[in-house]
Amino acid sequence: MSIKLNCDAGESFGSWKMGLDEAIMPYVDMANFACGFHAGDPLIMDRSIKLALKHGVSIGAHPAYPDLMGFGRRSMVCSLDEVESMVIYQIGALQGFATANGATLSYVKPHGGLYNDMMKDERIFKAVATAVARVNPKLKLMILSMVDTSKQEAIAKELGLELIYEVFADRAYDDSGLLVPRTQKGAVLHDVQSVIERLKLLQKEGVLETISGKRIALRADTLCVHGDNEEAVAMVETLRKSM
Amino acid sequence: MSIKLNCDAGESFGSWKMGLDEAIMPYVDMANFACGFHAGDPLIMDRSIKLALKHGVSIGAHPAYPDLMGFGRRSMVCSLDEVESMVIYQIGALQGFATANGATLSYVKPHGGLYNDMMKDERIFKAVATAVARVNPKLKLMILSMVDTSKQEAIAKELGLELIYEVFADRAYDDSGLLVPRTQKGAVLHDVQSVIERLKLLQKEGVLETISGKRIALRADTLCVHGDNEEAVAMVETLRKSM
Amino acid sequence: MSIKLNCDAGESFGSWKMGLDEAIMPYVDMANFACGFHAGDPLIMDRSIKLALKHGVSIGAHPAYPDLMGFGRRSMVCSLDEVESMVIYQIGALQGFATANGATLSYVKPHGGLYNDMMKDERIFKAVATAVARVNPKLKLMILSMVDTSKQEAIAKELGLELIYEVFADRAYDDSGLLVPRTQKGAVLHDVQSVIERLKLLQKEGVLETISGKRIALRADTLCVHGDNEEAVAMVETLRKSM
Amino acid sequence: MSIKLNCDAGESFGSWKMGLDEAIMPYVDMANFACGFHAGDPLIMDRSIKLALKHGVSIGAHPAYPDLMGFGRRSMVCSLDEVESMVIYQIGALQGFATANGATLSYVKPHGGLYNDMMKDERIFKAVATAVARVNPKLKLMILSMVDTSKQEAIAKELGLELIYEVFADRAYDDSGLLVPRTQKGAVLHDVQSVIERLKLLQKEGVLETISGKRIALRADTLCVHGDNEEAVAMVETLRKSM
Repeated sequence: MSIKLNCDAGESFGSWKMGLDEAIMPYVDMANFACGFHAGDPLIMDRSIKLALKHGVSIGAHPAYPDLMGFGRRSMVCSLDEVESMVIYQIGALQGFATANGATLSYVKPHGGLYNDMMKDERIFKAVATAVARVNPKLKLMILSMVDTSKQEAIAKELGLELIYEVFADRAYDDSGLLVPRTQKGAVLHDVQSVIERLKLLQKEGVLETISGKRIALRADTLCVHGDNEEAVAMVETLRKSM
Repeated sequence: MSIKLNCDAGESFGSWKMGLDEAIMPYVDMANFACGFHAGDPLIMDRSIKLALKHGVSIGAHPAYPDLMGFGRRSMVCSLDEVESMVIYQIGALQGFATANGATLSYVKPHGGLYNDMMKDERIFKAVATAVARVNPKLKLMILSMVDTSKQEAIAKELGLELIYEVFADRAYDDSGLLVPRTQKGAVLHDVQSVIERLKLLQKEGVLETISGKRIALRADTLCVHGDNEEAVAMVETLRKSM
Repeated sequence: MSIKLNCDAGESFGSWKMGLDEAIMPYVDMANFACGFHAGDPLIMDRSIKLALKHGVSIGAHPAYPDLMGFGRRSMVCSLDEVESMVIYQIGALQGFATANGATLSYVKPHGGLYNDMMKDERIFKAVATAVARVNPKLKLMILSMVDTSKQEAIAKELGLELIYEVFADRAYDDSGLLVPRTQKGAVLHDVQSVIERLKLLQKEGVLETISGKRIALRADTLCVHGDNEEAVAMVETLRKSM
Repeated sequence: MSIKLNCDAGESFGSWKMGLDEAIMPYVDMANFACGFHAGDPLIMDRSIKLALKHGVSIGAHPAYPDLMGFGRRSMVCSLDEVESMVIYQIGALQGFATANGATLSYVKPHGGLYNDMMKDERIFKAVATAVARVNPKLKLMILSMVDTSKQEAIAKELGLELIYEVFADRAYDDSGLLVPRTQKGAVLHDVQSVIERLKLLQKEGVLETISGKRIALRADTLCVHGDNEEAVAMVETLRKSM
């Protein structure tokens, strides 16, 4: 059993830089590239695909709500038709750069507010999943691993989509399998050893230790890691070497 | 010999409407759909492709400079890399909707400032053409028919691209084959009979009568028409029936 | 007692037109001008102020969430600091055009999603009201007249702001004083006589007849009317002549 | 005679950081704050004004063409009315934050493409100057010091505007008083001692040594410095201490 490391990337915009994409790329398996709505202008997208190709990293689209100022983190009340078409637009745009570089787009991971909203509201999930299936049903859709993802699975099955289950490397979970809010103490794991232990436990036994010490079963196809700064990159490098 | 009618479409944005797309679609052969940079949000793009499919109209991408406020009409000094990547982005996005609807994207016609700039500056033309070829060399590229288009042809040939030559239905030409500026008297043909005569002359003899009365040879694969308002649509309907 | 008519205006953007501003302006007392976040580019804002001056119409800022594609109608989860600063920004921008034209900015009426959110969540209301007070405490703040607006009044009093209470001319109200959702039958009054009767009843007795026929007391300083199309303008003209 | 140091600031946007504003602010006299068109969202503008107040730095508006993706560096062909209204909009927005914080807006320095265009084309300069005068004729307008600025001076005089003349601290000049293009060797002065000598020569004798070694007279009210990174800040700190 093998858990992949995935990382958000291509999140610069114009003259603004974000993320140490070149530094993190050697240590991850999958990169989720911004598609212009929350970050990532066309030039950055083109370079991102080349960077992924160079490192043999699997390429994912990272579509978001149209909100540069809020970096796509804000929840926005869009109609389901709007959500579906926004996702098609962004996948299409990144697919354009994949094709232009002879690369393959493999999966879709919604970003920020859209990701949170689709995990809370199955109508939004269905709109996103429909968009993916309409563009290319061979694209996989990455979702948050939760104790119960049966509703998402039913929708994906109906649409012929394969899901990828993601666990956050550095975020504490509560006993019901939800992320502990960042405002709460202990919500973020800063210690790389804790993250390595989490990864090993997930790989060997398919379970995760919650903030209370309880073990819950969580399917983990991939672990979400970060390349925002040098410490984050160093953590991922250590994590990778421990695998 | 058959000259096609092409029309800009899909130029609404959010709550703002522009163009009588449903009314014009039965009378044109090719529709150039905005791709989000000067007009055309994702929902509108999805609906535009469905509308084109319904009427059997050939689908073209209409990429522009990123300038909603200026409707893409302003010239913007972008680097050649930026131009190339902007065009890839927009073609990719529209291709996403084409694929999602089982339709085929056939050609690319740059819009407004980008169209003017690429006809004036062959480096910009090469950036645009490279973008088209990188996404899909089977896509054709629509250009302004001019007395001398040998430079554009050399670039297209090198990239393996086929060109489509466009003449404006309702704009006066000068003896050198350039459009008479809108600020000059007689620059716009308001009379449908004049347009019909222009079309017939182009079809039969491959020549166009300039504002001075001289006849010049211009290759015309397609005539650019407009669907902005009811009079414009009526003119195209009459033109279509005369063909 | 005199009820003023207020109307959203200046909601064109770039090449896209919206609203018959020149036609409606003679019949309204107050115009709420878009400030660039949901509609209204700088050139339109400059012209809007001149139009208001010409007709002696009171000038209001109509700030919104930053969302051109959604026309500011979508609720967006912004931080309170973000809301406060967005409102300051937009008031300041419109104030710039007022000053440039020798006109006076009189009041602020939030738009769409921001208006709805501030009436539902008093923390958002406080952020908006704080923004207004910080720029100029002499600016009045327009709110939705409801059966109980005591929370909004307490916040306004604390900030030294005067409120303006708005009733919708053409929307049905339920017995608790809330707008009947547009999805429900009878939600919109299309008949000008009904609107005239509503206006007279509000002026004489300060009450409004709900969709069930019950009369509820609602403070009405102003009635919101529309200038979107010719029928809407004709209704406002009739309404004005009946006053 | 005293030459002021001015610096672009407030050029972050949303989640993207740019410039070490807190580090540079103690060493400059004037800060040019982005107004939302090329950088600077509302929250950043509010914080920028507070930062300037804290350090007693003079506050300037830094308006630009509407181009986040290009950071306002691209030249854009706008109409003169558009330029004038864009500048009013941005000054008004920053004035809103100045008023909200009890601060005073002192001057305007156009940014990037707009700055270059106004120094090349006096019609654009007049549009910018008119905007400044319309909002507040007490605002000063910062321009590039050149050997001949008589045209700009005539326009400013007609509008009752005072000009501020700016010399670039770290850019080489040619004998005609123009900036040596960045593509040319020696275009940028990386050595702080050279900059200090330039400053002293300007202060004592009002002359500047060009790249060829010739001395030309240039009026210098202010020297443009940068706070982009730690080396730049260190250079400004050294420069300040030498004054």
